[in-house]
Amino acid sequence: MTKSSKRISNILALLVLFATLAIYTPHTKAYEYWDRKVSQFDSLPVYPEDIVFLGNSITDGGHFNELFEMPNIKNRGISSDVINGVAKRLTQVTKGHPAKIFLLIGINDVAQNVSAPKLIKKYEDLVDSIISQSPETKLYLQSVMPVNHSFKRYKTLYGKDKVIIDFNKGIKEIAEKKGVTYIDLWPMLADSEGRLKRAYTNDGLHLSGAGYKAWTKGIDKYVRE
Amino acid sequence: MTKSSKRISNILALLVLFATLAIYTPHTKAYEYWDRKVSQFDSLPVYPEDIVFLGNSITDGGHFNELFEMPNIKNRGISSDVINGVAKRLTQVTKGHPAKIFLLIGINDVAQNVSAPKLIKKYEDLVDSIISQSPETKLYLQSVMPVNHSFKRYKTLYGKDKVIIDFNKGIKEIAEKKGVTYIDLWPMLADSEGRLKRAYTNDGLHLSGAGYKAWTKGIDKYVRE
Repeated sequence: MTKSSKRISNILALLVLFATLAIYTPHTKAYEYWDRKVSQFDSLPVYPEDIVFLGNSITDGGHFNELFEMPNIKNRGISSDVINGVAKRLTQVTKGHPAKIFLLIGINDVAQNVSAPKLIKKYEDLVDSIISQSPETKLYLQSVMPVNHSFKRYKTLYGKDKVIIDFNKGIKEIAEKKGVTYIDLWPMLADSEGRLKRAYTNDGLHLSGAGYKAWTKGIDKYVRE
Repeated sequence: MTKSSKRISNILALLVLFATLAIYTPHTKAYEYWDRKVSQFDSLPVYPEDIVFLGNSITDGGHFNELFEMPNIKNRGISSDVINGVAKRLTQVTKGHPAKIFLLIGINDVAQNVSAPKLIKKYEDLVDSIISQSPETKLYLQSVMPVNHSFKRYKTLYGKDKVIIDFNKGIKEIAEKKGVTYIDLWPMLADSEGRLKRAYTNDGLHLSGAGYKAWTKGIDKYVRE
């Protein structure tokens, strides 16, 4: 090796190191966050009169008991969570046999390149687990929300519009098959081109205060019925 | 320039780009998260009977109304927040004139290399604002929590042990001067060497379920007095 090619290979090694750190650090943080939340939820009981919001960061970020002014609403969202993550911690919720569960999960699985048929299979297994572990719970399956690529923020969701639409069709069919309620969130949140309204987000994926208002207003009748 | 030195400079440029992205991407995300939370808090009233937990990610992660079984506890923590961030959004809390505020803020300022005297000055300004905006609120100033470097996770906090100790001394003096309550969290959370107990964290900074239990048990008498 010449001196300069050695230097190039050293720099390349550093570059690979940086790229690896950039890819893996957020993942580790996401797992640590999941682990801490699960350990906290483990000691927080769910009661039969409770309404549980179950999902990922979009659920995690919402102050639902304040938004609905109902103290019996419990937030069981964990940022970055996926269908399997919810499945792993499901008994923390179902063993309390809550009155209602509002499920919103799957967009992070879409970002991880899972195909629509596989998403639907995973989701159906999760729904089956909820129903078998707590048949008395009224279950609401919410469609995955629209996203907005014009923020250029979540590139792992680019080109996945059809997967999201097919996944939501699958969720609707699962709801019909199992006799539970499907809630299409798109009429509440999407613009005329099927994107998450700009006024409801600041990154094209997560909800701002106005977004939470629109969502909670849209599902209010289900929460209170 | 020779061909190989050109190649080196191209690789170096890429390296700088990666490093820049690695540094700035989390920052942008942190700001976007702050901005969304603030927009949500904007429409969520605080009432005179409320107890508000105000701070950064350590507050953000806690389900205090469930941990204390008190529906009038409101979480106003925002992940990554700093003293100035809390100051900027302070009126969202103080205009409701809550019964109590539990303040826990400053560790992210420490991570940003702010010196102890500057931290104490910023913190005192914040306390003055709280007292002048809502003199009827009972204010509790909590010490910054111990950290644990053995997790090798938050390198921006390495070598800052003395800054943290001096900052906490300053918080205690501010509490005495203003006639508000200082709460030293270290007896609840630190091991014999002054580190956050391993059983209470999974990254040396943030609290696990056991950590939230220890903290909320330790401050229970202040929450209920």
